[in-house]
Amino acid sequence: MKPQISPRGRAMPASPIRKLMPLADEAKGRGIHVYHLNIGQPDLETPQALRDRLSHADRVLAYTPSGGTPEYLDALVGYYRGQGIDVESADLIATTGGSEALLFAFFATTSEGDEALVCEPYYTNYNSFATLAGVRLVPLRTRGEDGFHLPPREEWERALTPRTRLVLLCNPNNPTGTVYTREEIERVAAFCRDHGLFLIADEVYREFVYDGGHAISALTLPGFEDQVIVVDSLSKRYSACGIRLGALVTRNREVHQATLRMAQGRLSPPGLAQLAATGIPDVPAGYFASVAAEYQQRRDVLFAGLTGIPGVFLRKPEGAFYFIARLPVDDAEEFARFLLTDFSHQGATVMVAPAAGFYATPGLGRDEVRIAYVLKREDLEQAVAVLAAALPAYRRARGLASRPDAAAEPAEALRIQRPVV
Amino acid sequence: MKPQISPRGRAMPASPIRKLMPLADEAKGRGIHVYHLNIGQPDLETPQALRDRLSHADRVLAYTPSGGTPEYLDALVGYYRGQGIDVESADLIATTGGSEALLFAFFATTSEGDEALVCEPYYTNYNSFATLAGVRLVPLRTRGEDGFHLPPREEWERALTPRTRLVLLCNPNNPTGTVYTREEIERVAAFCRDHGLFLIADEVYREFVYDGGHAISALTLPGFEDQVIVVDSLSKRYSACGIRLGALVTRNREVHQATLRMAQGRLSPPGLAQLAATGIPDVPAGYFASVAAEYQQRRDVLFAGLTGIPGVFLRKPEGAFYFIARLPVDDAEEFARFLLTDFSHQGATVMVAPAAGFYATPGLGRDEVRIAYVLKREDLEQAVAVLAAALPAYRRARGLASRPDAAAEPAEALRIQRPVV
Repeated sequence: MKPQISPRGRAMPASPIRKLMPLADEAKGRGIHVYHLNIGQPDLETPQALRDRLSHADRVLAYTPSGGTPEYLDALVGYYRGQGIDVESADLIATTGGSEALLFAFFATTSEGDEALVCEPYYTNYNSFATLAGVRLVPLRTRGEDGFHLPPREEWERALTPRTRLVLLCNPNNPTGTVYTREEIERVAAFCRDHGLFLIADEVYREFVYDGGHAISALTLPGFEDQVIVVDSLSKRYSACGIRLGALVTRNREVHQATLRMAQGRLSPPGLAQLAATGIPDVPAGYFASVAAEYQQRRDVLFAGLTGIPGVFLRKPEGAFYFIARLPVDDAEEFARFLLTDFSHQGATVMVAPAAGFYATPGLGRDEVRIAYVLKREDLEQAVAVLAAALPAYRRARGLASRPDAAAEPAEALRIQRPVV
Repeated sequence: MKPQISPRGRAMPASPIRKLMPLADEAKGRGIHVYHLNIGQPDLETPQALRDRLSHADRVLAYTPSGGTPEYLDALVGYYRGQGIDVESADLIATTGGSEALLFAFFATTSEGDEALVCEPYYTNYNSFATLAGVRLVPLRTRGEDGFHLPPREEWERALTPRTRLVLLCNPNNPTGTVYTREEIERVAAFCRDHGLFLIADEVYREFVYDGGHAISALTLPGFEDQVIVVDSLSKRYSACGIRLGALVTRNREVHQATLRMAQGRLSPPGLAQLAATGIPDVPAGYFASVAAEYQQRRDVLFAGLTGIPGVFLRKPEGAFYFIARLPVDDAEEFARFLLTDFSHQGATVMVAPAAGFYATPGLGRDEVRIAYVLKREDLEQAVAVLAAALPAYRRARGLASRPDAAAEPAEALRIQRPVV
């Protein structure tokens, strides 16, 4: 008898960020250059200070402590203090990227059938961890017109059920680029405290804030120590996505202990990554500022370029290195496929992530894409030129007017021509 | 309101291998040398061929493909072919150690409330993955007197319920050191096929077989392609426990696809580890034979030493680098604590893993310990001397006769003085 895979194995979603990759590979096979705006893989070098440590690897690449090496944890404590966040080693568990921190946080706080509140659009891979944990993600809608800022407290109250266990908040936000105000984060934390919920704060883009802004860490809110679990990662911060190293940070001792027991079950976080991370104290002081300046310029290039394309709507994001753009198309996934299979402009095309996979509510995000600005400015300018040429071509191919205008478009398209900056 | 951690977070077991570590640290603080027989951390060097690759790291430590880099997967395929196991890249998913392969295998094959059959004593961390997955491990007992070989088919049939989804088999076995015969593995595989169960075969000790023996991989059994999921790891094979790299291997396409979707959810396996693993083809041809010869000698040293201690019972294990030893004590965990808190011999003591945590049936294994022979022979001889002195001292301290003999001991102790080799 052939054994059957489990319902949760079957329900596990394919990544909407990666699922069009075979089409991109085919386009490359036809000699077309593909600008990858679909994935948050920065092109910046991993700091030399981290890479240099690899030449000091032990001759026996042995297990490390389950919660992380003292050297890595000390480097993290130093980093947090530099960010004005007062944590101790005993508040940390080293994890295999932010991903494992999310996994641990879900399992430490939920039972199968429980619910988690999350603002949509949200980082699509939250669906994977929720599926593993058997948890339903209950979406609260945020809107481009509001800069994707948080809904009022009444909406949070309405979404609450007896199975609600936590709020999952990404700040700065992937995919919207929104950076929440202190008042917004305190409001969510107070909602959590009032109802005995955990606040899982995904802060992996903490340094990526522009125009002189600053992200408020949930760890700096006094009085919410029992509520807050922070998911963190070195991936974006040090352009080191591939090493798979992060941390779960909490002052809630029960959560910390449960997480440590889970960490013991998988023995150790990656050792070579922890070795590289001991170079953190040697990263030059101006590193984050220079990285943020570079991303701010990239954002500005893309924003200026895309707002010049008729029918494209986006707001200027405050942080991270993504935004959600609404396009004058019927189906953004069809358009993303069109870009890879039927279109090129001066030998190049663009890969974008259809945004529907970032929403839980069916039908939302169908005319939106997530765009990551992790490429050099010249490349982003070329990508804008591709999109500017592709949109009319796609509309012609679909039998729509080549330019969206009042005569050809429904009311929704009119509305989306009023960009909110 | 203080939020409550989840029942599964609360149920997550602490590692019985590591939980006495604070006592070991205290002993070291008192200047006592501790021989670690509690954990399978080999002292052999990671092959130079793997470590050398670290000097070729990219300047951007980027995400790798979710299922593993082509270079790592190719190195694995080459390794398997060298072992007479015919697999292709498309059968593999790179994982963060064997641990993540176990996690993926559990989630791909079970729902909460399902059952998995496993022979006890078993690798204690299976409890962690079962707890995360909400799966009950149903034990089939194996006994030292039988060399911990597999029970007859009737016992497997009796343990079956409508919730049984899989059999979890570790071969060569941690903690018993047993290497199953081809007939035994075929018998289990046929049982799985007859009942539509998966066979999850943990084969991370494949090369550690002594006296000219050979481990039969479940991947080499014809006709069981739909059943078999192999959990594999580089940790022990290349003395590289800390890099956290392994693989899930299956020819069942549905399992492979579900696992790949889980892998996409966590983005990538560790990149530096995969880089190191591209050195696998350059590991000298005689490497496994020389490692096995070294461990065989270590096993022989420990076996000779321990069988010379009155009241100690163990069989000579065929593989891996562990065995279960029965000791003339009332409570092996108490004895393990005594070793660390109340005893030293010539400035040294020994840390062992109490075996009760390797059994699911309450009360079993209380007079047993798991011993890992991952230290140099001289160290193992010293460890034997410590245990030979400690056992009478412990018995005296507990008010037992200093030597176990027929007059002082119950029938069970008599039986355990007949070692089966």
